[in-house]
Amino acid sequence: MTHTATHTIAPDLETCIDNCTQCHGVCLNTAQYCLQKGGEHAEARHIRLLLDCAEICRTSADFMLRGSDLHGRICGVCAEICTRCAAECERMSDDPIMQQCADMCRRCAESCREMSQAA
Amino acid sequence: MTHTATHTIAPDLETCIDNCTQCHGVCLNTAQYCLQKGGEHAEARHIRLLLDCAEICRTSADFMLRGSDLHGRICGVCAEICTRCAAECERMSDDPIMQQCADMCRRCAESCREMSQAA
Amino acid sequence: MTHTATHTIAPDLETCIDNCTQCHGVCLNTAQYCLQKGGEHAEARHIRLLLDCAEICRTSADFMLRGSDLHGRICGVCAEICTRCAAECERMSDDPIMQQCADMCRRCAESCREMSQAA
Amino acid sequence: MTHTATHTIAPDLETCIDNCTQCHGVCLNTAQYCLQKGGEHAEARHIRLLLDCAEICRTSADFMLRGSDLHGRICGVCAEICTRCAAECERMSDDPIMQQCADMCRRCAESCREMSQAA
Repeated sequence: MTHTATHTIAPDLETCIDNCTQCHGVCLNTAQYCLQKGGEHAEARHIRLLLDCAEICRTSADFMLRGSDLHGRICGVCAEICTRCAAECERMSDDPIMQQCADMCRRCAESCREMSQAA
Repeated sequence: MTHTATHTIAPDLETCIDNCTQCHGVCLNTAQYCLQKGGEHAEARHIRLLLDCAEICRTSADFMLRGSDLHGRICGVCAEICTRCAAECERMSDDPIMQQCADMCRRCAESCREMSQAA
Repeated sequence: MTHTATHTIAPDLETCIDNCTQCHGVCLNTAQYCLQKGGEHAEARHIRLLLDCAEICRTSADFMLRGSDLHGRICGVCAEICTRCAAECERMSDDPIMQQCADMCRRCAESCREMSQAA
Repeated sequence: MTHTATHTIAPDLETCIDNCTQCHGVCLNTAQYCLQKGGEHAEARHIRLLLDCAEICRTSADFMLRGSDLHGRICGVCAEICTRCAAECERMSDDPIMQQCADMCRRCAESCREMSQAA
């Protein structure tokens, strides 16, 4: 989103928006992969956590895209949920798809944590 | 949602889901009303707060609908944002539409606060 | 949403908004039930259809809540997806939870179809 | 989302997902810009169209991220709404922010149209 920096969005927010947006996509897509794979990948609580993570990431991105001064609170919760999702995906990290999802969640968690402390 | 209580959702969650769902709808609809009304109703930060409130309410409802154990954290943030939105709408409470929106936000905030403390 | 009819939303839209909102909730909740139940209930394409239906219902409700003149197009697609989801849930209708979800989807499909033809 | 192509998402879908995701962000952010700018930028129907476009783009991206076979129908409606939003933003194209939003919407519309015809 090259144009966004030109009016409302501070450069440091851009990275966090990008991470949240990508993490939303990766978690939603990974949930579908896990459903197809079956077994522990398809356990109800694992799929739920991926969907929870996808949704809070999108909400977090949207707050920042609106330039909301409340984004710090949302980013704080987002960091927690991403961290939880990363840990859960790492338990299955012999599967490279899960490792990639975990990496994305860690990156997003770190970015959201910084944003929540700066706010 | 009469069926939901029969399998996954505890009765006390149902009320909070209903409040969040209604508050999402009222805030989204009120934002459009405010845009049409113009003046202070249509100020950027007022519309943004209504959209922020609508979005966190839907996110909060979705976490509860999935039966997520993380709903307490989301409900906590939702309570804060609803409280802020209620206060903002009350500033314009000579307009009955704004008073109704404020009332809905207060009801949702209270319901989410209880849910976040119980979690 | 008692207040909504007072300013922006026509009475006939209210019913459709309510159906879409309820159908969103029932499908999201039923997806979690199905994941816990396992077997054919938890097949990737079944869960995906429930999530697709939940998302288009919410989008449809949001367009109507904003009073968008584009709601007819969204309602048309929503009717199709709800009909597909109803048919899929009916295949498992020996399970009363699935029958309830099918009934909700049928009701929402009919309501959205009328709305798309009226628009 | 480099990993997504490795399992569920066909390469041609990736571009459309990216366009929808970016268009969601640009429209949401531009809506806030317009509210701050005021005047015709902040007219109710203009803001509504930007919010409609942002929401259908996200819904469209999510359907593709889930690998849904129903994505063609959603992409078709998304193409229509993006085209309408582009035309509206072009009316204000002496403002470079609006021109950038129009360009993004045109790109997304084209991408979604191809996807809806291929489906």
